[in-house]
Amino acid sequence: MRVWAIVAYDGTDYSGFQRQANAPTIQEALETALEQITQESITVLAAGRTDAGVHAVGQVIAFDTAWRHSVGDLQRAMNAVLPADISVRGVAEGAPNLHPRYDALGRRYRYTVYHAPVRCPLARRYSLHLVAPLDVEAMQRAAQKLVGEQDFAAFGQPTAGRVTVRRLLMAEWRDKSPWLTFDVEANAFLYRMVRSIVGTLLLVGQGKMGVDEFEAVLASRDRSQAGPTAPPQGLCLMEVTY
Amino acid sequence: MRVWAIVAYDGTDYSGFQRQANAPTIQEALETALEQITQESITVLAAGRTDAGVHAVGQVIAFDTAWRHSVGDLQRAMNAVLPADISVRGVAEGAPNLHPRYDALGRRYRYTVYHAPVRCPLARRYSLHLVAPLDVEAMQRAAQKLVGEQDFAAFGQPTAGRVTVRRLLMAEWRDKSPWLTFDVEANAFLYRMVRSIVGTLLLVGQGKMGVDEFEAVLASRDRSQAGPTAPPQGLCLMEVTY
Repeated sequence: MRVWAIVAYDGTDYSGFQRQANAPTIQEALETALEQITQESITVLAAGRTDAGVHAVGQVIAFDTAWRHSVGDLQRAMNAVLPADISVRGVAEGAPNLHPRYDALGRRYRYTVYHAPVRCPLARRYSLHLVAPLDVEAMQRAAQKLVGEQDFAAFGQPTAGRVTVRRLLMAEWRDKSPWLTFDVEANAFLYRMVRSIVGTLLLVGQGKMGVDEFEAVLASRDRSQAGPTAPPQGLCLMEVTY
Repeated sequence: MRVWAIVAYDGTDYSGFQRQANAPTIQEALETALEQITQESITVLAAGRTDAGVHAVGQVIAFDTAWRHSVGDLQRAMNAVLPADISVRGVAEGAPNLHPRYDALGRRYRYTVYHAPVRCPLARRYSLHLVAPLDVEAMQRAAQKLVGEQDFAAFGQPTAGRVTVRRLLMAEWRDKSPWLTFDVEANAFLYRMVRSIVGTLLLVGQGKMGVDEFEAVLASRDRSQAGPTAPPQGLCLMEVTY
């Protein structure tokens, strides 16, 4: 059967989701746990291949197994075996022919900024610390320019193929001082697209780029026009929809 | 001059506040940073000697220094030199004859429980994960028995002297599912008193101890009557008042 699961993780100590030869990854940790539990060799598919240091509370994975007990038992076994920085929030038997990445209709990410004069040690693993004053209203106006089906080549490269057009459904800054969050949802994202957008919107917030300039960057389809890539620890994969 | 500062830290990787011979402590990190900045040998006094793994957002420290620049410069220098899991939130020149511990009028701590079926990797460093159903209303009724000037020998030992009477000003559970917080304020606390109280109140919440029994435990002044000591990662020193 194909098991589908919602997975949360603290990405701080991992080199991203996707398995690599000589670095710890979420995929490797999940597959190691599953092999220990089922005695099978299992490949875990995921909705989003999050980068090194990026977190998730709503990553969706799927894998095939000959598991003969309940999926609830499998979830409990996985949470008992997995390291403390990864957990399985829910499990269900699901469509055997669907792929968590190719068949996902949308992904929602959140980027969190800790906006205060002094850094907070308890926030440092899950946010970007910024001191500079920010014009959040300008950041929100610029973010609105992203909504719709557009070519996002200025903000990233495709992980496969050549198409850089994506359909962005929502982009919203919320200011609950000292927390500043950016929620963004799209049918799919290019490589590092959210962090590249955030890094550029923060230039707008600091008055280093106008909203019109931001719109021109988007229209340029030129990666070199965008701002810096915001650091990974502020980013979290919130939800995947099917 | 005597400098007073408000300090925040993630206690996860430290063996508590107080300097020890062969373990990393917050005191050692602060004194090392100050010595690097001032070229003086500096002893840091603190309001609360938090245990290994316990956090703080409002620890108060004081130290004497011949620093000739502004205290704002000293704060910036400290935040530049300190590791990322410690920060100085505010600095002021203050009373040279007052001691942050002996002259404090009150301390407020918060204990945080993540109350959900599955653990959350992003919450694990700063909360206790509990799955069992909890009768928060009973926990709150029991907590009210703690308020007032009472002998708290059942919940801890004094760090100096023999007196186990403390004046507890406030004890309040707040349930914002999945987060459950316990705020408690007293003139001072015995060694491990908050964690011992929380561990015992969680027995009440799970129906393993009645509110009347809790009251009897308090009256017994017998440490062996209390419940287990709750783990350190849920505890945070919020504020010290003078």
